[in-house]
Amino acid sequence: LVPAERLTVIVNVADDDLFFGLHVSPDVDTTIYNLSGAAPAKRGWGIAGDSSRVLGALERFYDRSWFRIGDRDLATHIFRTDGLRAGVSLHEITGRIAAAYGVRSRILPVSDDAIRTAVRTRSGRWLSFQSYFVERHARDRITAVAYRGLRRARPAPGVLAAIRDADVLLLPPSNPFTSIVPILDVRGVRAAIRKRRVPLVAVSPVAGGRAVRGPLGRMLRAHRMPVSPLAIADLYDGLVDALVIDSADRALKPRLERRGLRVAVMNIHMHTRERSRAVARAALRIAAELERERGWR
Amino acid sequence: LVPAERLTVIVNVADDDLFFGLHVSPDVDTTIYNLSGAAPAKRGWGIAGDSSRVLGALERFYDRSWFRIGDRDLATHIFRTDGLRAGVSLHEITGRIAAAYGVRSRILPVSDDAIRTAVRTRSGRWLSFQSYFVERHARDRITAVAYRGLRRARPAPGVLAAIRDADVLLLPPSNPFTSIVPILDVRGVRAAIRKRRVPLVAVSPVAGGRAVRGPLGRMLRAHRMPVSPLAIADLYDGLVDALVIDSADRALKPRLERRGLRVAVMNIHMHTRERSRAVARAALRIAAELERERGWR
Repeated sequence: LVPAERLTVIVNVADDDLFFGLHVSPDVDTTIYNLSGAAPAKRGWGIAGDSSRVLGALERFYDRSWFRIGDRDLATHIFRTDGLRAGVSLHEITGRIAAAYGVRSRILPVSDDAIRTAVRTRSGRWLSFQSYFVERHARDRITAVAYRGLRRARPAPGVLAAIRDADVLLLPPSNPFTSIVPILDVRGVRAAIRKRRVPLVAVSPVAGGRAVRGPLGRMLRAHRMPVSPLAIADLYDGLVDALVIDSADRALKPRLERRGLRVAVMNIHMHTRERSRAVARAALRIAAELERERGWR
Repeated sequence: LVPAERLTVIVNVADDDLFFGLHVSPDVDTTIYNLSGAAPAKRGWGIAGDSSRVLGALERFYDRSWFRIGDRDLATHIFRTDGLRAGVSLHEITGRIAAAYGVRSRILPVSDDAIRTAVRTRSGRWLSFQSYFVERHARDRITAVAYRGLRRARPAPGVLAAIRDADVLLLPPSNPFTSIVPILDVRGVRAAIRKRRVPLVAVSPVAGGRAVRGPLGRMLRAHRMPVSPLAIADLYDGLVDALVIDSADRALKPRLERRGLRVAVMNIHMHTRERSRAVARAALRIAAELERERGWR
């Protein structure tokens, strides 16, 4: 919908982790693989048609084979780890990986510093996000979410400027707790967003009382929040101008509008590329309307 | 020919190198893959039938694809690098890799410290061993060989004791410059060998005026030495009791014997497992003879 060169994606790094001593950046890689067309149609991670020869051989040495890494995906982690050890910054390496995959959009990890999501389960134990999400299949009841390193993390070069110079800002329907808040809470990011003179449109990650994907429902309940776009409006309070919500939540539109939000209602489930384009188009349309009405430009 | 448990192989680490940020120990791995039966029948490195999916994907990121690493082989390097970065010593990790491959013999890298062979070519340029040997196909004329780190390197735990406690010591027909000298010159190794009360038998790595394998001929010439078992006797002077030489060098037997060496003459080319066994058997036989005659035990 927009020229690839004009898109900047600021990506969460709080679910980065070390596997087999290799630095894996799941959100960054998923973004790159999706934009390059290398991602699988159905599965939410890795590379389409990838083999797992190395993983099979690693099982000679390690038990923890719960984190599946395909062979072509592994090359990305080897390159990233090699670069980091040589002193290259994460955002610089990310740029090289994106370029190697032919991605013309700018992929910016929100920070070069380590931020790590941890979740506390009912047993009181803290788990790394990947251990909770992948190893334990997001089964545990969660009592708290914490972001280690977030307070000290500085935005990667280019992040604040990208927010400042954007024509429109979008928050995708990712899990706010695991993917959006650890971006927003990096030093300077909320302030840069507040200073904007362009619309910020969010797409709801919940629809009809359920998370569109993943363990968000459980996390909302852990925070004693309803699994509803109302909770999303609370989480992004004061930051967003508009919300795209699902037809199943149509009845909530007036309440959201009373809070000053512009609301678009549609099918927000993005099971196909066409559905994704439709949602993105709605978000851009609402942004254009707001811009015109408010005379921002 | 001997129970696997009774064999200790002290292995050169001077051709270790980093590829893609991963620590590769070519001699250690070749030893483990050979003893486990994973090595290819013909090729002198890697794992039989290995694929190279990751290497193909790494070529997105790197030019230097001259060092071929198969997928299953790569898992070994990932595990080794992960362990080293976590502070595990090289000999300890080597033991775990050997165990994972079902090798019951003890595989001991001669040192946990970095030793690196470098060769100087006629242009005066110094090359790492792998760059000379693999990248440049050992084409360059060599004017010098140096071992960086060798003087400071300490023997790995178990190395000197293995030499002290051995029933027999064997020097295989490896390239003395690239594989044997950087073992012998590790602190304490020559002294431990000199104190032995058991025979040391070497198998000649040259036959009929040519190296049995690899660039040894060129290296001998660089040192102004003949490509002959006489040069091998010089290189191992005072250390070896016996030499197994090739039938093509039969005429040299009296000269070698005058230097106090016991000499066995046979076909030393080890193109098949049967040939390898025959050479090993000859070496063990000559050791047994020496032991009996000299009343060492």
